This record gives sequence, C-alpha cells and structure tokens, in this order.
Amino acid sequence: MKKVLIFGAGRSAYSLIHYLSKVSLGEPIQITTADLKQPDFVIPDNTLFEKVNIQDEDHRNELVQEADLVISMVPVRFHSLVLKSCLQHKKSLITASYASPEIQSFHDEAVEKGITVLMECGLDPGIDHMSAMQVMDKIRGEGGEITHFETFTGGLLAPNHEDNPWEYKFTWNPRNVVLAGSGNSQFIQEGKYKYIPYHRLFRRTEVIHIPGHGYFEGYANRDSLKYKDLYQLDNIKTLYRGTLRRVGFCKAWDTFVQLGATEDSYEMRNVSKMTHRDFINSFLYYNPSDSVELKLAHYMGFEIESIEMYKLRWSGIFSDELVGLDSGTPAQILEHILKKKWTISKKEKDMIVMWHKFDYILNGASKRLLSYLAITGDDSLSTAMAKTVGLPIGIAAKRFLEGNSFGKGVVIPVIKNIYEPILKELKTFGINFIESEKTINA
Amino acid sequence: MKKVLIFGAGRSAYSLIHYLSKVSLGEPIQITTADLKQPDFVIPDNTLFEKVNIQDEDHRNELVQEADLVISMVPVRFHSLVLKSCLQHKKSLITASYASPEIQSFHDEAVEKGITVLMECGLDPGIDHMSAMQVMDKIRGEGGEITHFETFTGGLLAPNHEDNPWEYKFTWNPRNVVLAGSGNSQFIQEGKYKYIPYHRLFRRTEVIHIPGHGYFEGYANRDSLKYKDLYQLDNIKTLYRGTLRRVGFCKAWDTFVQLGATEDSYEMRNVSKMTHRDFINSFLYYNPSDSVELKLAHYMGFEIESIEMYKLRWSGIFSDELVGLDSGTPAQILEHILKKKWTISKKEKDMIVMWHKFDYILNGASKRLLSYLAITGDDSLSTAMAKTVGLPIGIAAKRFLEGNSFGKGVVIPVIKNIYEPILKELKTFGINFIESEKTINA
Repeated sequence: MKKVLIFGAGRSAYSLIHYLSKVSLGEPIQITTADLKQPDFVIPDNTLFEKVNIQDEDHRNELVQEADLVISMVPVRFHSLVLKSCLQHKKSLITASYASPEIQSFHDEAVEKGITVLMECGLDPGIDHMSAMQVMDKIRGEGGEITHFETFTGGLLAPNHEDNPWEYKFTWNPRNVVLAGSGNSQFIQEGKYKYIPYHRLFRRTEVIHIPGHGYFEGYANRDSLKYKDLYQLDNIKTLYRGTLRRVGFCKAWDTFVQLGATEDSYEMRNVSKMTHRDFINSFLYYNPSDSVELKLAHYMGFEIESIEMYKLRWSGIFSDELVGLDSGTPAQILEHILKKKWTISKKEKDMIVMWHKFDYILNGASKRLLSYLAITGDDSLSTAMAKTVGLPIGIAAKRFLEGNSFGKGVVIPVIKNIYEPILKELKTFGINFIESEKTINA
Repeated sequence: MKKVLIFGAGRSAYSLIHYLSKVSLGEPIQITTADLKQPDFVIPDNTLFEKVNIQDEDHRNELVQEADLVISMVPVRFHSLVLKSCLQHKKSLITASYASPEIQSFHDEAVEKGITVLMECGLDPGIDHMSAMQVMDKIRGEGGEITHFETFTGGLLAPNHEDNPWEYKFTWNPRNVVLAGSGNSQFIQEGKYKYIPYHRLFRRTEVIHIPGHGYFEGYANRDSLKYKDLYQLDNIKTLYRGTLRRVGFCKAWDTFVQLGATEDSYEMRNVSKMTHRDFINSFLYYNPSDSVELKLAHYMGFEIESIEMYKLRWSGIFSDELVGLDSGTPAQILEHILKKKWTISKKEKDMIVMWHKFDYILNGASKRLLSYLAITGDDSLSTAMAKTVGLPIGIAAKRFLEGNSFGKGVVIPVIKNIYEPILKELKTFGINFIESEKTINA
C-alpha cells in the first residue's frame, strides 16, 4: 500500500486530499495529512490526520521516513525544512510553490540522493507553465517561431457573486494580495527591456477581453524576464506576465499604494489605539478641520462621489472602529482592516481566469493564438483556487506513485511528459483551455 | 608631541587637516593622514601622508597604536574596522557619521576600555545637534517648554553660482543625493504620527523663507522620530527634520523617483550598450513613434516647455550618448549620467543653509525662536561643506588633546560641555547662527 504524506492541512489542501482519497492503484493510497491544527473541513474516512509541529525535526523525520511520497502545502518559508527531511530519507517531494534559489540550491544533492523535487505544480505557478508550454511546444514542433508571449492570471469572484463595489474579495492568501507587485516589475516589449516601479504599477494596466467573460485589467507581475530562459524564448520580442482584476480595481487599489499603506518595512506607532480612520489619516497631511475623506480624495485626485471613493468607503477605511492589533507594519494593518469586509462568505463563489497570447511566425505568416481558462468554484470548500492548485499536485502525485519518472533533482512542469498527462486529466474536472487562432498582419 | 591619525584623505578632510596643522598645544600636533591614494590637494608641510589599505588590519593597527587620537573620514562602511583597531589599542575616535546600531553595539566595550567614540560631529549630523541643543537647553533653562521643533539643512550652490535651471549641483557625495529620502519618512505633526512613502516625498514639500537668503523648499528627511529621545522632547507636538533645496527642485527631481530611476535594488540589463535616452525610455511605456520627451512629459503631467522639462533636458538625460558603465542599478546609472552635468566646477562655490524653528511656552506665553546659518564656500577646496564638516571635528580633536573629557563610550555632541566650546570657536570661522524671537498667538 503506497503512502502519501501531506504537510499542511489548510483550505488549499481540500481538493488535493479529496482527489487522492479516491485514487486507487490496484489498492487505495494511504494518505496522512500532518499539521499543527485539524483542518477546518471534514477529511475523507480513509485518510489519517497527524498533529505535528513542522519545526519539530524528529517528528517530521519520523513521518517522512514512513512515506513513499511527500507533498508540502505549508507556508513557503517551511518548504526547506520539509525538503531536508526528504533528502535525509530519500523521499520525493511535490509542492505548488516557486523553486526559490534556496530550494534550487539543493538540486545537486537531490540528484545524488535520486529523488524528485517537483516544484511549481499548482495554478500560478503550475497550470500556467503547463498550458503555455503545451502551446509553445506545439508551435515549435510545427516549425513556428514565437515572437510575443503575454500571460495573465487572476483569482477573482465568480459572476453573480460580485455584489460589492470592488467586484473583488480575498479568495486566497490576503497578505499576498496586499503585497502584490511590491518591488519592481520587469518585462520585454518589442525588444526593449521595460521597468515599472511599484508606485506606478497600478496605473500601467492593460485591458484584456475574454470572450464570454467580459473585460479585465491586468498589471505586470514582478520579473517576467526569468521566463525567457525557463520557456527557451531566447529571441522573444515581447514577454509579459501579469495579474488580472476586474476593470476599475487597480485605480482604487492604487490609493493604498500611493498612501504607503502597503509598506511592510517598518512598524507603525500607537497601533493598539489606532482606528481605521487614524490609520488612513496618518499618511495624509495634517489639517485641524479638513475631513479624512476630503484629504484622501484630494491626494488621489478623485471626485468625492466617484466609484473609487465608494469602494474605499465600502471597505470601512474611514470608520472609527479600532483596528484591533497591538502592533504591525502598514501592510499588516491594512490586511487586518480589509479582511473585515473582504473575506469571502460561504455563499460566495470564486473564479480563476488565465489568459495567454502567443504571436508567432509560421511559414512567413504572422499568427496569433489565444488560449484561456475560466473556472468557478463549486462551493466554499471546493473553490476554483483549491481545485486549480490541488488537482495538478494530486495528479502528479498519482502518476509518481504509478511509477512515472519526472527526472531527478529540482524540476518544474515545463517538460512534456510531466505536463501532458496532468493537463489531460484536468480536463475531466472541467479545467480546460479554450483556444482560438488567426492570421494577423505582418 | 601629540599625534593625530586621520583615516581618509578625501576632499572632506581638507578643512580638517588645515585646521589641525595650525593648532599648537605648546608644541605642534603631529598629523598623519592615511588613505589608499594621495589627497588631490596639497597637504600642509608639517603633516605626513601614509599610504594604507583600510582593510589591511595589521597596517591599520600599527598606525592606530602610534596615535593619541584617531579621526575617521572614510566611507561609513569602514568605520567599524577603524573602531575595532581603536578598541584594541585603547585610542579614542571622532567621526562625522551617524552612530549606527553597529557602532552603538560597541558602546559597552568602549566604556570598559576607557575610550571616547565621538560620532555625529560634522555638519548634519553635527552642527545641527549642537546648535539645536544650545537653544533648547537655554529655553529649558529659563523654564520654557518646547512644543514644536522643525529643522532643515541643505547643501546648495552659493548665490551667483546657480546659473543652471536646477540651481543645484552635487556639492557632496552624489550617491547620497540620488538616494536621498529612499525608504520611508516619519514625523510628528500637532501630536499625530505622520508617514510619507518615498514616492510622495518630493510632492509633500514645505516652503521656508530665510531672511536675506530667499525662499527654499524642504522635504522630510527619513525618521524624525528618533530625535524625540535624543533631544529629550517627550511631549513634543511637532517634530520635523528635513532637507532644503531651491524652490522648484523637488518637482523636477520627483521625475526620477516616479520613473523608478533612483531604485537601487536590482541590476539593469544591457547597460554597456545603453544611452542616456535608452535609460529614461526603459521606464516609459512602449510606443513605436512617440518621442521619449513627450512620453516623459505626459507621464509626469508636465507642459513640454515647462521649467521641469528644461531642467531635465539640461541634465542630458535625453541624449544619445552612451552611459559609459558596464553594469549598474538604476540609481548607479542615474548618478553616473547626472555627474556629467551636475559636478561642481572649480569656479563654482557651494553654500550650506541650516534653519531651526522652536515654538515654546514660557510663563504662559507662546513664543517662537528662529535660528539659521548660511555659509558659502571660499573656493573649490575650502568649500562650505568641507568647512562645516571638518572644523567641528578639528575643534573637538583639539579639545580632546588638550585634556577635555567628552565622556566614555559612544557619544554624540548633544551635551553642553561638548557643543558649547565647539560652537564658540566655529563663530571665529564665520559659522554663526542668526537668531530672532517673537511672541505668537496661543
């Protein structure tokens, strides 16, 4: 009986656990989920739960030693602890997180120990790699040369579940949303390297139309340049990776960036006595009589009755309610305030949208291929995010246990024999890309 | 014969060396200046020069062992090396740099070894502390309570030497000018903590008038809050520390901030083939036909013939000249480009302006005391900056060698018996604060 050990029982593990619990390799798989706390969903009868502190090395090693495969769904900073145990006991590992320089530094040791460390096998990174590489391998297989590649992904609310002025709520890790884009974004456009500083990011948006799903706006997602090597796009003229939001989101979100309310580099003062209103006011000029609302509208150049001000008011940022934290950086405080209104309810469904554009030259003709995915959640547990992150990992895990090789060392799913079977099985869950193609002017 | 060892023979050491060479303590002082390169000015006949690599521990120790007092004018990152040698040989040290957490961590060891480490004894930090504390000690001595304190300092061009559209050139370390204000600025205004993110700093300026010297604009200088403890201003309502520029500078400089051209966190691509124009264009949107000038004017909301565009054009940023570096961060490249036009010539004189405003309550009446310093350079060596940085150090060194105590451990000149004699002697060099006082409405 094959044994799979899953570290991390957060909501992101829901679809993964349920998928694996239904897999049979002649006999069922023994699944153990290990975390500090019981999951807040019911786990299938045929799965086990083990209480573990991920930082307890002995306990971690004891569990890893028993497993045939380890999956890590813990916060990013703990992956290397899991990997160390995997290396010690020669067990392969799958995660949905980026192959960070730290993880990559273990490549040689993983090769030597004969294990696979399959990283970036969720949605974004994960399905984005797989679906893009499938198209690019097909184009290149036909002799085409890819000249432009743009790709956007967004975790959004499903249509009919967008009844708030932002048409947005947190459907995944709120901290990542608050810090999204911080740092610097880089990409290539028509052969030119382009750089956008964080404080201009939400004003440099593109409009993306997805047939049948409406209009979205996209902003650049940090360093697109690293995908040049990853996807072997040596002579690419345009390479742009971005994040999707509903139209109008970015202009209002930019308020927090312009205020400095998303900064995470210093602790604010007097947080325990701070109201939402105080928080916003601390970034605005002092005036004994002007309202915080007017000062903010003036700061941003918004009309008082604009949709941006509606969005901001709806978020409760002008309220006299106490923040409810004892300390925090601006980003931590903002996250805490927004969670009060931006937490998705059990009745609301989420949606994942992914969109790729490939321009290429084939036999002297300029062609464009568009490919998109739009998938909505089933309910508050089987969300679009949980499915699109958990199922690729689950399928990869099943295939590994069936004896398929992904290669040794640290790998990501840009290789045909990894991505092809995963994408094929994802279709059976409705995770399916729609493609359209046309010849464009040269 | 007393021996002073000065590490660092840059232009900042000019006034210091010349001052000390004229000091007599019954007999002259033996002065040794030590650096990797000969100074690019003539050193007085009675002083020695020693070629030394500051990172050569043995050579450093050998020199320190011989000295009665060490002065460090080397770049900030090397001060701790000098301090370690001083601790080893129980020699006192004076610098013009901030008492960084690293330097402060040696306080107990310095006390134990019985040495003085006098930090922040130049202009800013240095004369700012001394002149502010002198006023504050006087006010408090009379029973007054200080409610508001604002202080601004600027290194500028002297009047009649401002014949360029910025009315500004580099009169000190260009890198510090390019990175000025990066990070986050914090202050207190009317009892409220206020925070300004870097990308809004150069739009949140104040106008300061200095009688007889005209109008200036000031922007907040990082963390003003630390001066609350340093100056014992526990109940202060307003505490603001800023930097002065000529009016109009900040709006044009903001262009570089808005572009992201002052970022120092990543290396740009293809730098060896980059022209000034390419550098600016890499931060602007792609368009096959629009000019870089128009794109930049649009990005900033400047009229094409505005003074801001004149300033930017004058700086050569639109030129097709190669940058002339093989690699670099945006900040390093911008510094390199600006140095071509912004380097002060031998004919141009600099100016230092410092301005303090103290509001206080004395016997129930609200009072305001204004105090300012404006000093111009004598020539290209005896600049206002070299004098205001070097002379306070020189005077402190003389007083130390005369046997005056500054206390043991890491200290800064906020104590009366340190600052009073220094300020008194500075007056003999024309470095003199002008004060005015009035009763204001409560």
